[in-house]
Amino acid sequence: MDEKGNNRVVTISLTPPSLKDNTADADRLVGALKHQLGTDEVHIDLPLLRQIPMLLRKWHYRVRCVLFRDRTRHLLLGLDGPDANPAAGLAVDLGTTRVVLRLIDLATGDPLGETAFDNPQIAIAPDVLARIHHTDTPGGLEEIHRMIIDGLNAAIRELCDTCGLRLEEIYLVTVAGNTAMTHLFMGIDPHWIIREPYIPAVNAPDLLMAAELGMAVSPLARLLVFPSVGSYFGGDLISGILFSGMNRMEETAILVDVGTNAEVILGNRDWLVACAGAAGPALESGVARMGMMAGPGVIETVTVNPETRRFEYQTIGGLPPMGMCGSGIIDLAAHLFLSGMLDIRGRLVPEKCCERLKIVNDMPFIVVVPAEASATGEDLGMSQADIDSLIRSKAAMYTILRTITLSVGMELRELRKFYVAGTFGSFIRPPSAIAIGMIPDLPPECYTVLGNSSLGGATLALTQEDCMAEIEKIRNGITYIELNVNQELMNRFSASRFLPHTDPSLFPSVRVWG
Amino acid sequence: MDEKGNNRVVTISLTPPSLKDNTADADRLVGALKHQLGTDEVHIDLPLLRQIPMLLRKWHYRVRCVLFRDRTRHLLLGLDGPDANPAAGLAVDLGTTRVVLRLIDLATGDPLGETAFDNPQIAIAPDVLARIHHTDTPGGLEEIHRMIIDGLNAAIRELCDTCGLRLEEIYLVTVAGNTAMTHLFMGIDPHWIIREPYIPAVNAPDLLMAAELGMAVSPLARLLVFPSVGSYFGGDLISGILFSGMNRMEETAILVDVGTNAEVILGNRDWLVACAGAAGPALESGVARMGMMAGPGVIETVTVNPETRRFEYQTIGGLPPMGMCGSGIIDLAAHLFLSGMLDIRGRLVPEKCCERLKIVNDMPFIVVVPAEASATGEDLGMSQADIDSLIRSKAAMYTILRTITLSVGMELRELRKFYVAGTFGSFIRPPSAIAIGMIPDLPPECYTVLGNSSLGGATLALTQEDCMAEIEKIRNGITYIELNVNQELMNRFSASRFLPHTDPSLFPSVRVWG
Repeated sequence: MDEKGNNRVVTISLTPPSLKDNTADADRLVGALKHQLGTDEVHIDLPLLRQIPMLLRKWHYRVRCVLFRDRTRHLLLGLDGPDANPAAGLAVDLGTTRVVLRLIDLATGDPLGETAFDNPQIAIAPDVLARIHHTDTPGGLEEIHRMIIDGLNAAIRELCDTCGLRLEEIYLVTVAGNTAMTHLFMGIDPHWIIREPYIPAVNAPDLLMAAELGMAVSPLARLLVFPSVGSYFGGDLISGILFSGMNRMEETAILVDVGTNAEVILGNRDWLVACAGAAGPALESGVARMGMMAGPGVIETVTVNPETRRFEYQTIGGLPPMGMCGSGIIDLAAHLFLSGMLDIRGRLVPEKCCERLKIVNDMPFIVVVPAEASATGEDLGMSQADIDSLIRSKAAMYTILRTITLSVGMELRELRKFYVAGTFGSFIRPPSAIAIGMIPDLPPECYTVLGNSSLGGATLALTQEDCMAEIEKIRNGITYIELNVNQELMNRFSASRFLPHTDPSLFPSVRVWG
Repeated sequence: MDEKGNNRVVTISLTPPSLKDNTADADRLVGALKHQLGTDEVHIDLPLLRQIPMLLRKWHYRVRCVLFRDRTRHLLLGLDGPDANPAAGLAVDLGTTRVVLRLIDLATGDPLGETAFDNPQIAIAPDVLARIHHTDTPGGLEEIHRMIIDGLNAAIRELCDTCGLRLEEIYLVTVAGNTAMTHLFMGIDPHWIIREPYIPAVNAPDLLMAAELGMAVSPLARLLVFPSVGSYFGGDLISGILFSGMNRMEETAILVDVGTNAEVILGNRDWLVACAGAAGPALESGVARMGMMAGPGVIETVTVNPETRRFEYQTIGGLPPMGMCGSGIIDLAAHLFLSGMLDIRGRLVPEKCCERLKIVNDMPFIVVVPAEASATGEDLGMSQADIDSLIRSKAAMYTILRTITLSVGMELRELRKFYVAGTFGSFIRPPSAIAIGMIPDLPPECYTVLGNSSLGGATLALTQEDCMAEIEKIRNGITYIELNVNQELMNRFSASRFLPHTDPSLFPSVRVWG
């Protein structure tokens, strides 16, 4: 479209006015933009409109325009000289626990900077439910709303300082978060979200002015808040789908996002089916408990030589070991099973574990790092209870995956694209997760770890011309299915509590040593 | 559409949410509105969005919605109970001299009240040019902008007090004014309007928020500013065209609006041609000088019995006479001519005028009211110079009318619809104006006096569903023609300086007595 790249940032040369062509300044610019963008409508906010005569003459009728397409109309968000500073866009992953910001150049999509901070609302409560209850107290909604806005503004200032940008050079903001976080961010009462029949105030808010929420960006900056499907399926997941691109693919893919909840989306360019793990405490608590915070000294990979039963591990930063995070735990369970130290029912096998097996608090405990080698001075490893918990989690995960796939008449082995997102993505290594039967036995190239897909989708939306339409299409196209905890599902859950499964034909690649 | 009337105010009953239908509150309302209005997009501003959960529950899911269609999308401007106060709209005729406001019920179109005030910018200067120069002084634009906003707000408060409405119950404002007044109203620099090549900052502004200009109405009220065609053809004329409806007619009509300038629009549903009397000082000054302010005691009609040459007159309010306004002057000239007291060249005929003719300041003067009968103690009437001036005016008017009609290959006599608007309308009585050859000799039923057509169009836009599209269509469809003061036009002007014209066949109905 233009030497500068995409349609967000366009440099326009206008024919200066003359007696033969005395079109008004704004109409002249709008006419040129309509022609160049092929659009019917270009909107200019009054504060910018007031500056147009001066700006056009200052830049000799050659100007750089920052634009955003809101459904059928283009909005002119900024007007500057052709060699101005980059026009920036800000993507925000609005997590319940952690908030991540990424600043990009709207013209090129190049990242300019990234930062993160703990959601200040944690000071009210770590969990969503308690935060929503807090909004029922006098001034509570305003207080909790200000917390996130103030936190964001501090982070934006820091980002701009680092990148050498002015706040006014941020023209577009995209925010992806779950339904409750989105309400609190917009200052909208979330009261009814947690009360039967569980009604959000809004699922699909319109494009907002960032200034309406007091955000420290350009006064004309627009704010795209990713829409939710409902109380339990938020904009962060819509953003993740956008990032994966599964909604544009011909072949059916699956996207698994496990953060606080487990959410699964199955589909292709024609249809999307989603379900959340909020299907019953049995499934949910198990999956949720797996996550341990990664950090320096935490064991992130474990391997066991099946022949020698020798343990090897790596810690984050190569520091002395002080604990295990999710990926380490799954690795450990997988290798214990593959080397025969864990049986098909998930029981530690004393005659295979030998001296690595201890009894702690009347319970078997497998030692990975003996006390003398650990940074804590205590044995590091897993108890039988930890293993049982992991097995419930993996069974829950596999049950959800199987159930949603069967709901559309497919088998998991038919999938050729399996996206892993969220915290889950960072602690899943497919071979280990496959070995314990947590995820289906697909060839390794089928698995793609998306990382922070919520932030990824929010970033994509900053530069994608038709993002509003695509996001709306994703949202409207999703069929949300409730997981009925019926006998069939419970049978499927029970069958999944074996390693890797009661039906080994589902996991042909998993071979236990010896 | 709804028991309440049009699509501006719609009462909607929603199915309350349930576990089977847990659509979010705003999405539920938007969905119902989309269905009822047959639209793809309903926008809700954030402050209203925040109140929706409370309002829906307060009114048990039966609510009255105030809406406006901005091109392709509907805007929800207000949400209330089904039996709330009328939702009001405000139409403003933003004159250089006088500002007129009309408040209506958006549901029914019924007028609620009307008021007017002198444009406070007169304190800066009575004329547009000097006001524009004033904006070049430091703070001048802001000062002159505040003047009109403050004046409007005072008038709005007065109107609301009178009607028993709250300011927040005004949801929509339409404003029609000339290009310069529109700029000053929006706080936009008019500097380039009066400097070659005469470029407005904007001709077609987008729909605004009334609150952006500090107007004392609902914070979410939208403001439709009628677009201009250029520096010399403003939104007041677009509004007048809308009011006349000529843009929707199959047959060609003409609209003549004489206020400070003379503007003429000719056309039908397929095309519109316009020109302004700013074609040269010769034409313009004449037309402009005719207007005299009507008021108590001013002579507004004069008749002369052609046989007895007896004068009869009526004053406004039946008070003793103290002057003459435009309609009285045209009546007088017409009756002088028809009774032979004025000859075909516009000279007073002494032998017909007899004792009514005096010499004042070395110039013939025809007395209508002798000094002893007048409220001023002086003779009231017209001097030969006044008559010469009127004849230049009427010749200018007829020349403009003839020229624009010829420009599309028509003759004036082919017209069957002749709309008279502006101050002009209030002092034109077609028989008298035809008698002196100011307007064409059409049957009386062809003439329609529109009154304040600018206010009329602004009022119409308040309730007309597709007004934005129609206004845009009118504006984009106008071909503006410059009147070239060439020999042909000057010949036409000279021919028009006779009574009624050098070519009497153009005025077959005009018969001089005796």
